[in-house]
Amino acid sequence: MKAVIYNGPRDIRVVDVADPQIEQPTDVLVKITSTNICGSDLHMYEGRTDIECGRVLGHENLGEVVEIGRAVYRIKVGDKVCLPFNIGCGFCRNCEKGLTGACLTVAPGQAGAAYGFADMGPFQGGQAQYLRVPFGDFNCLKLPEDAAEKEDDYVMLADIFPTGWHATRLANLMPGDSIAIYGAGPVGLMAAYSAMIQGARQVIVVDRHKDRLKLAEQIGAIAVNDAEHDPVEQIMELTNGRGTDKGCECVGWQCHDHGGQEIPNLTMNNLVKTTRATGQIGVVGVFVPQDPKSPDNLMKRGQIAFDIGNFFFKGLRMGSGQANVKAYNRELRDLIHADRAKPSFLVSHRLPLEQAPDAYKNFDNRTDGWTKVILKPNE
Amino acid sequence: MKAVIYNGPRDIRVVDVADPQIEQPTDVLVKITSTNICGSDLHMYEGRTDIECGRVLGHENLGEVVEIGRAVYRIKVGDKVCLPFNIGCGFCRNCEKGLTGACLTVAPGQAGAAYGFADMGPFQGGQAQYLRVPFGDFNCLKLPEDAAEKEDDYVMLADIFPTGWHATRLANLMPGDSIAIYGAGPVGLMAAYSAMIQGARQVIVVDRHKDRLKLAEQIGAIAVNDAEHDPVEQIMELTNGRGTDKGCECVGWQCHDHGGQEIPNLTMNNLVKTTRATGQIGVVGVFVPQDPKSPDNLMKRGQIAFDIGNFFFKGLRMGSGQANVKAYNRELRDLIHADRAKPSFLVSHRLPLEQAPDAYKNFDNRTDGWTKVILKPNE
Amino acid sequence: MKAVIYNGPRDIRVVDVADPQIEQPTDVLVKITSTNICGSDLHMYEGRTDIECGRVLGHENLGEVVEIGRAVYRIKVGDKVCLPFNIGCGFCRNCEKGLTGACLTVAPGQAGAAYGFADMGPFQGGQAQYLRVPFGDFNCLKLPEDAAEKEDDYVMLADIFPTGWHATRLANLMPGDSIAIYGAGPVGLMAAYSAMIQGARQVIVVDRHKDRLKLAEQIGAIAVNDAEHDPVEQIMELTNGRGTDKGCECVGWQCHDHGGQEIPNLTMNNLVKTTRATGQIGVVGVFVPQDPKSPDNLMKRGQIAFDIGNFFFKGLRMGSGQANVKAYNRELRDLIHADRAKPSFLVSHRLPLEQAPDAYKNFDNRTDGWTKVILKPNE
Amino acid sequence: MKAVIYNGPRDIRVVDVADPQIEQPTDVLVKITSTNICGSDLHMYEGRTDIECGRVLGHENLGEVVEIGRAVYRIKVGDKVCLPFNIGCGFCRNCEKGLTGACLTVAPGQAGAAYGFADMGPFQGGQAQYLRVPFGDFNCLKLPEDAAEKEDDYVMLADIFPTGWHATRLANLMPGDSIAIYGAGPVGLMAAYSAMIQGARQVIVVDRHKDRLKLAEQIGAIAVNDAEHDPVEQIMELTNGRGTDKGCECVGWQCHDHGGQEIPNLTMNNLVKTTRATGQIGVVGVFVPQDPKSPDNLMKRGQIAFDIGNFFFKGLRMGSGQANVKAYNRELRDLIHADRAKPSFLVSHRLPLEQAPDAYKNFDNRTDGWTKVILKPNE
Repeated sequence: MKAVIYNGPRDIRVVDVADPQIEQPTDVLVKITSTNICGSDLHMYEGRTDIECGRVLGHENLGEVVEIGRAVYRIKVGDKVCLPFNIGCGFCRNCEKGLTGACLTVAPGQAGAAYGFADMGPFQGGQAQYLRVPFGDFNCLKLPEDAAEKEDDYVMLADIFPTGWHATRLANLMPGDSIAIYGAGPVGLMAAYSAMIQGARQVIVVDRHKDRLKLAEQIGAIAVNDAEHDPVEQIMELTNGRGTDKGCECVGWQCHDHGGQEIPNLTMNNLVKTTRATGQIGVVGVFVPQDPKSPDNLMKRGQIAFDIGNFFFKGLRMGSGQANVKAYNRELRDLIHADRAKPSFLVSHRLPLEQAPDAYKNFDNRTDGWTKVILKPNE
Repeated sequence: MKAVIYNGPRDIRVVDVADPQIEQPTDVLVKITSTNICGSDLHMYEGRTDIECGRVLGHENLGEVVEIGRAVYRIKVGDKVCLPFNIGCGFCRNCEKGLTGACLTVAPGQAGAAYGFADMGPFQGGQAQYLRVPFGDFNCLKLPEDAAEKEDDYVMLADIFPTGWHATRLANLMPGDSIAIYGAGPVGLMAAYSAMIQGARQVIVVDRHKDRLKLAEQIGAIAVNDAEHDPVEQIMELTNGRGTDKGCECVGWQCHDHGGQEIPNLTMNNLVKTTRATGQIGVVGVFVPQDPKSPDNLMKRGQIAFDIGNFFFKGLRMGSGQANVKAYNRELRDLIHADRAKPSFLVSHRLPLEQAPDAYKNFDNRTDGWTKVILKPNE
Repeated sequence: MKAVIYNGPRDIRVVDVADPQIEQPTDVLVKITSTNICGSDLHMYEGRTDIECGRVLGHENLGEVVEIGRAVYRIKVGDKVCLPFNIGCGFCRNCEKGLTGACLTVAPGQAGAAYGFADMGPFQGGQAQYLRVPFGDFNCLKLPEDAAEKEDDYVMLADIFPTGWHATRLANLMPGDSIAIYGAGPVGLMAAYSAMIQGARQVIVVDRHKDRLKLAEQIGAIAVNDAEHDPVEQIMELTNGRGTDKGCECVGWQCHDHGGQEIPNLTMNNLVKTTRATGQIGVVGVFVPQDPKSPDNLMKRGQIAFDIGNFFFKGLRMGSGQANVKAYNRELRDLIHADRAKPSFLVSHRLPLEQAPDAYKNFDNRTDGWTKVILKPNE
Repeated sequence: MKAVIYNGPRDIRVVDVADPQIEQPTDVLVKITSTNICGSDLHMYEGRTDIECGRVLGHENLGEVVEIGRAVYRIKVGDKVCLPFNIGCGFCRNCEKGLTGACLTVAPGQAGAAYGFADMGPFQGGQAQYLRVPFGDFNCLKLPEDAAEKEDDYVMLADIFPTGWHATRLANLMPGDSIAIYGAGPVGLMAAYSAMIQGARQVIVVDRHKDRLKLAEQIGAIAVNDAEHDPVEQIMELTNGRGTDKGCECVGWQCHDHGGQEIPNLTMNNLVKTTRATGQIGVVGVFVPQDPKSPDNLMKRGQIAFDIGNFFFKGLRMGSGQANVKAYNRELRDLIHADRAKPSFLVSHRLPLEQAPDAYKNFDNRTDGWTKVILKPNE
C-alpha cells in the first residue's frame, strides 16, 4: 500500500510498504479515508525527536473497517470508525479510569501509546491506505449514518477536538468563566471552540498568524496578536486588570517570541501572569523530557525557568499531558451528529496522499491559509 | 500588652505594645490563650522577607472573645474560638467560593491576607495577649465544650492541620492511594496524618531529622531518610518502581540537599520523578515571587528550573498555594471533638510568651526535639 | 409605600404599607425598579399554603440601594443590585459551603429563608416600592454599567435563571448530554436555556401550552406536547428508545394530567421512565411536606407513590430543592453582561404595580401569552 | 461438577451439573475456592424473584484461573482472581465510564448483568466448583502474593465491600461527616466500615440483631437498636437534633418494622427524617420494579409512599443502584494488601458446598451468629 514515512529531518516521502495484517484476535483493520497532518507531526518532521526513518506517520485517522480478528465482538466489517490517536487496552489500571492516554498495556514499560509517533510504541501510523487497530472493540469509535457527509468533522475526533477540549478540562473551565488560550493552531482553535460550547463568557486567543486569529474571531473568540503588542498587557486590559479565570497552553516547548527566537518558558510564564489568583491552567502543548537540539540550555534537559513564586502566591493549579481521547470522543461525536458542533471550520486543504510532502512543508512554514490539512489516501 | 515583634534578621523581641481596639462594627477582640510558632514564621525570622520591624508576629491563634463590635451577630463574648490564619470577608468572589485564602477585600489590591505576615496586609499577629479579628462572624471558628481540654489540638486548626489537609486535597488524594510527602516539619506531618485519616494505603514521608521521622512512623507512615540514601530511589523501591499515586511538597523554596545547600527545585523535581503517570501533586511549601538573598540565581526572581518535560509526558497535575482554612476547619474540628483526630501529637513545647526568642532560635536550628512550640501569652 | 399583599385565596391587593427601615447595621434598603411574579407565588395565590394575610409578596427583586446600615462595607448607596430570593447570612455552616438556600441563621430554627414566602421566615416581599435586605454585603449582587439597559435580563438572576440552572446542575448535566425537562413555565424554560448554554446535545421540553412550547423551540429545544400524545412515548422515540441522559422536574406537586386532574407523582414517575439507566434527575418543581387541600390522599401528607423499583434498577440519582442562587448568580450575570445569555426572551408583560391583581389572575390561568410578568413599582 | 441450584422457594440443592467450558476466545475458567452467600441471594431463596429452577446461584466468587480463551491477554492460568458480581464488557458506553453495573453488552437488551442472579442475564453462578468468566481480561481482579492468606478478606471484593463502599459514595460521604446506616447485615456493616476508613466523624448503624450491632460497635460505629426504641428519635438525639450529614439504605424493599411486618417505605422515609437539610442518601438495599407477593399494594407494582415533600424542603439528594464493583475493587484490594482494611471481621462460617442448604436456612432466619457464610467448593 502507499504510506507517508519519515525519512529524516524535513524529509518525508510517500512510498510503497507492506499492508498491515491482523496480528491479534482482538485486532481490526481499517481502510483509511481521512487522515490529518497534526502540529505534533511537525516536531518529528523537523527532526526534533528520535523517531526512526521508515516509520509510517499519522495519528488522526478515520476510515472503514475491512477485517476483524476472531475475538472482536462489537465492531463489524463495514463500520465507519474514527480512531483515537492514543491506543488503549481497556483493562489496565489507567484505561479503566478513563486515562487511556496512559495505557500501561499497549506499549509495555511505558504509560501511553499512539500511532506513528516518537516514543509512543512501535505502531505504524495512518497516513496510509490501511491501518491496524489493536483492541478494536475498545479503540474504534463507531460513526452514525452521516459519517460520510460529516467526515471532515468526525475526523477531528481522532485528536485535535478532544485535545482542545482536554485543555479546557485540565483548566477546569466552568460556564461563565473567562479563558485565555495561547496558540491559535488547530489545537488552540479547538480549545477556543470547546470553551465556547461549554458556555465560557470570554475566550481570548493569542497568536500572530492573521489567518488563524481570523478563524478564532469567526467562532466568537477575541483575537490577541502578540506580534503587535505584549499579549500579557492586552489580556490584562481585556480583563480590567484581573486576568482570566482559566488559561490554556496550546503551543508547547518550541514556542517563539515574535522575533522568531525559541523561548521554551514564554507561554507558561505568560499564563502565570495572565491567570487570576485561584485560577487553573491546562497544558496540552507538548513539552519533552529532553531536546538536545534546543537553543535553550535548560530545555536541552527538558526544563524551563518557571515562575513558581507567582504560581504559588496566586494559588494556581495546572494539569498537563495528552488528551484521553476516549474520555471525550463519544460526547463530541454526538454534538457533531446533532449539529451542535462543526469542528471542520478550520480545514483549509483536502489533498491526496501523494501531496503529503508539500503539505508538510507548507504546514511547517505556517504558510498563510494552511491551517489544517486532511489527506485522502484512498481517493 | 505583651507581644512578640520582629526586630530584624534572627532578632525577635517580647515588648509592650498598645492593646488592639474594636475598629469596625464587625470586629471581635480575642484574648489569646494559645499561639503557635509556624515554620513560615522562620522565613521572616531569618530576614528572607520584607516584613517591617515592629510588626507583631503570629498567625496560629486561639483564645476567648472579650469584646465584639456592634454588628457582630453570631459570636458572643466568652466564646472560645480558633482563628484561621488567613483573614476573609465572606462576601467577595473568592470567599463566596470557599477560597478564603484569596480574599479580595481584606487587604485591598491583593488576593489574601493574614495576621502578622509579610506581604499579607497590615494586620498585627497573635503572638500577643490580645488580637483584633476583622469580620468576626465569618472568621471565628467556635469551639465546643471540650475547648480547654483539647486546646493543644484545636489550636492546630488555625493553620497546620488545614494546611496539611489542603496539601492532600490539592493532590486529590483518594482512599486507597499511595502518597509521598516531602518534609516532616509540622505541615508535612499534618499532611501525612491527613492522608491516614482519609484512607491512604501507603504514606511515605521524606526528611532527615530523626525526631520528626519518628513521629511520622508513630502515625503509621513510612519514614524515608534522605540523608542516608537518595529519596527518589527509596520511594521507587517502596512502590515497586511505579512511584506514588500522589505527592505533596511541604518544604518550600528554602529546601536544602543533605549537604545543607539550598536547592530551590530539589523537592519539586523529586516529586515529578516519584509521582506515577497521571498522578497529582499538592504544593503547600512556600515559594516566593522573588528572594534577592537566595544563593540560586533563578530563585532570586522567583523561578526554578522545573522538569516540565517529564511533568507533561507523565500527564501530571499540580495545585499550589495557601490553604483556604475555612474550607476545612469545621470538619477537622468535628473530627477532634469526636476523638477521631488528635493533631497535638507533634507538640513538643508549651512556653510562656517571654521565651519566644529562645523558642524561635531552637525551632529555626531544628534543634532535636523542637517539633512544635505553643506559646501561652496569658498564663 | 405601595405593596402587593396576600389577602386570601385568589385575592391579592395593592395597598399602602409602612416603609421598611434599616433594622440591623448590616441591612440595606433597596428601591425596587423590577419585581417579577413567580410561578411559586401562585401556590400562595391559590391558597395552597399557610401564608398569613397582609404579607407583602415578591421574591424576584431588583433595584437601587437607597440606604445602608453602619456596618455595610461593600455596598454603596446608588448601587444597582439584584437580590437572590433566598436570604443568607454568609457565615453559617451551609452558607459557607455555598448552600445559601439552606441558611441556618436568617430564619432561626429552620434551613432557608426568602422574601415574601410561606414557611420561609417573616420577611416582607419586594412587590413593593422598597425592600429591606438583611446582610446586604452578602446578599446584594452588584450589577454593571449596563444594569438599566439589560434590567429585564438581570432581574431573572433573582430566581428563575439560577433556579433553571440549578435544575441542570442537580441533574449533573454534562456537555453532549441529552436532557428532558418537564414543564415549560418560566423555570422550565430557564432550565432548557441553561442546558443549551452548557452544551447539551438534545434538550426536550414537555408541556401543553403552545405559547410556551414555541419559546422552547425558539431557543433550540425540542417541544413535546403532552396534550397531543403520551410524553413518555414521544421522548423514547426521540432518543431511539434509550431515554435521555438527564432529566428535570420543573412543575411540582400540583402537576396535572392533560385532563386537568392533579396527579402529584405524574412527572416524577415519567422522569423515572424517560431517564436512561445511570442517569440523573434534578427536581426544582416544589413539593410540600403537607397539602391538606390536595385531591390526592398521599399528597395530603406530602407523599407520592414513587417508582422506586425502576429508579433503583436503573441506578438513577436525583437531587432536589431550592436553588442556592448565590452559587450561580455571579457567573450568570457575567454571561448576560458579555451578551452570551439573554434570559428576558420569555418576558411577556411589563406592568405597573397597580395591575398586579390582574396579572396574578392571568398568570394563574395560564392565559395564552402570559409567560412572565415584571412589575415596575416605581414607574 | 457440584453446584448449588435454585429448586423453588426455600429449596436449594447441591447437585451435579455439567462443567462450564470456554465459549468465547475472551473467556476465562476459574476454579472456585471461596464463594459467599449474599443477602440478595435470599430474595431468590424466598421465592420473591422469577429466577428459574435449576440455575446455579452465587455471585461473590474467588478462585484460581484454570483455562483461558485464545484472545485473553492479561490473565494467565494460575492467577488467583476475585470476580466482580456484575459482569462487564469494558467497551460499552457505560463500562467506559466506569459504570460496569450497567453494562449494555453482556446481557443484550438490558443494563447490567451478574452471575446466578434473577433478571441479570443467563449466567450461571459460582456456588460451584468452576465458573465461566466472560471478558476475562476486563472482569478478573488479580490478587497479590498474599491471596491465600487473606482469602476471606479478598472474597469480600466480589460484592459486599464494594457495595458497602458504593453506599457511602452515593451519599457523597466526606471526611468529618456523620452518617446513619440503616441495616447491619453484611452490606450495612461494610458501609459502616467504609465510612470509618474514609474518615467519617460519626457512624450510626441501625438494626435489631444484637450480634450484628455488636460487630458494628467493634469497628467503631454507634449501634442503634430499633427494636428497643424509635430509631429516628435515637439518631436525632445522637446528633443534637440536627440529623446526620449523610445516610445509607442497606435493607431494601423487604424491610420490616420490629413487629416483623414488611413496610417497604420504612427505611427510606426514616432516612428522609434523619438526614439533615442539604444531606445526601445512598440506596444499595434492593428495590424491585414489581413484587406480586408483597403484602404492600404499592410495592406490588414497585412503588413506595415516599416523603418527597420533606425530601424537597430539605434539598436532599439520593443515589441508588448496584455497585459498579470495578470502580472500587482495585483500591480496596490494595487497602487489604497493605493491612489498612480487614473486611473478614464479619465472617461467621466457612463451610463445604454440601452444607449450602443448611447455611441458606440459617442465614435467611437471621439465626444468631450467622452473619456471613463462605462456601468452599473445592475443599
